[in-house]
Amino acid sequence: MEEIKPVSGVVIRRLPRYYRYLGELLEDGITRISSKELSAKMHVTASQIRQDLNCFGGFGQQGYGYNVEYLHTEIGKILGVNGGRTMIIVGAGNLGKAIAGYGSFKRRGFTLKGIFDVDDKVIGTKIDGITVQHTREMEEFVSRNNIDIAVLTIPKMYAQETADRLIRADIKGIWNFTHKEITAPIEVALENVHMSDSLMTLSCKIGRAGNSDK
Amino acid sequence: MEEIKPVSGVVIRRLPRYYRYLGELLEDGITRISSKELSAKMHVTASQIRQDLNCFGGFGQQGYGYNVEYLHTEIGKILGVNGGRTMIIVGAGNLGKAIAGYGSFKRRGFTLKGIFDVDDKVIGTKIDGITVQHTREMEEFVSRNNIDIAVLTIPKMYAQETADRLIRADIKGIWNFTHKEITAPIEVALENVHMSDSLMTLSCKIGRAGNSDK
Repeated sequence: MEEIKPVSGVVIRRLPRYYRYLGELLEDGITRISSKELSAKMHVTASQIRQDLNCFGGFGQQGYGYNVEYLHTEIGKILGVNGGRTMIIVGAGNLGKAIAGYGSFKRRGFTLKGIFDVDDKVIGTKIDGITVQHTREMEEFVSRNNIDIAVLTIPKMYAQETADRLIRADIKGIWNFTHKEITAPIEVALENVHMSDSLMTLSCKIGRAGNSDK
Repeated sequence: MEEIKPVSGVVIRRLPRYYRYLGELLEDGITRISSKELSAKMHVTASQIRQDLNCFGGFGQQGYGYNVEYLHTEIGKILGVNGGRTMIIVGAGNLGKAIAGYGSFKRRGFTLKGIFDVDDKVIGTKIDGITVQHTREMEEFVSRNNIDIAVLTIPKMYAQETADRLIRADIKGIWNFTHKEITAPIEVALENVHMSDSLMTLSCKIGRAGNSDK
């Protein structure tokens, strides 16, 4: 993350997909790909791909295609993959536990440092090797350990209040699963995840064009 | 879902957000909203909103704004909310349990009918009132009960094979959380959820413009 270039939010939102596809190509032993082939795989126009990837200084060579590994590494850097990001999870319910157990986050260099809850029945128990602490310890833990990301998997009525406490403790980003859109100052990165949006999109597609827009 | 109008995938993808915001307005007792106000709330241009909502026959009236409740109901119909959709969950791990417990799906008329797993330790136990069955019962259950949606929360190596079995049993839509992009015939609706995309987007925003694109 040494270089901070201006990249639009829309492009940023497409990068994880590029990163995923390039990772799959690498797994399949593919070392070079043309924008046309990448386009067919990703259901994005080739010109869109060239435009997106040019934002990062254009890793492609005319008529020769992209170096898959190089592109994968460079996009990974931009995404902060293997950048040593630290996380805490606030809310040790089923979703919190599911996230704690995700191997793919660990493989991408996101390290879970703490889990917090208010329920005496789970405080002191271990999830994925980490002892659950009371949320009253949360702010001090975030400050002391310089935590980057807080994952919110708590009931939605506590979402904004908990976010505000984390922001005061200098959290850098909030990954919000509470089904309640929260607000944060511009300097705090925020991703509101609305799982039911995806379910409703699916529901809407049923009986229409099926998966034609994927 | 009586009327099937052609709506582009991009617009469909925005509808759940409209639906959510309109729902929040209703909760706040707001009955009318101009496209300008809706635009400010949703961070979309007013002309984009007018264009999107015109796809559905234009519920707005010049200089008078949108009727929030009417718009909420109509978009809900398009999304299949309260349309009596039935679901099963395949994979009774933490994520499967988290999804089984989501109140917001039930409120929107999605009814969970069955949960399936291969692990003898969970088969026969109850999750949210539903007894977990062996996946060998899955196809017959889907056919017999005319299930609309299967939620996949299984290890990714079983994703495509399980999807294929569900498709042969005439499932209408697959909500795939397996981190493995699966393929399905055009007539089967498909949503691949990649939670790590959202985490990487967040990570990318840290140290950049923060949440400026939300």
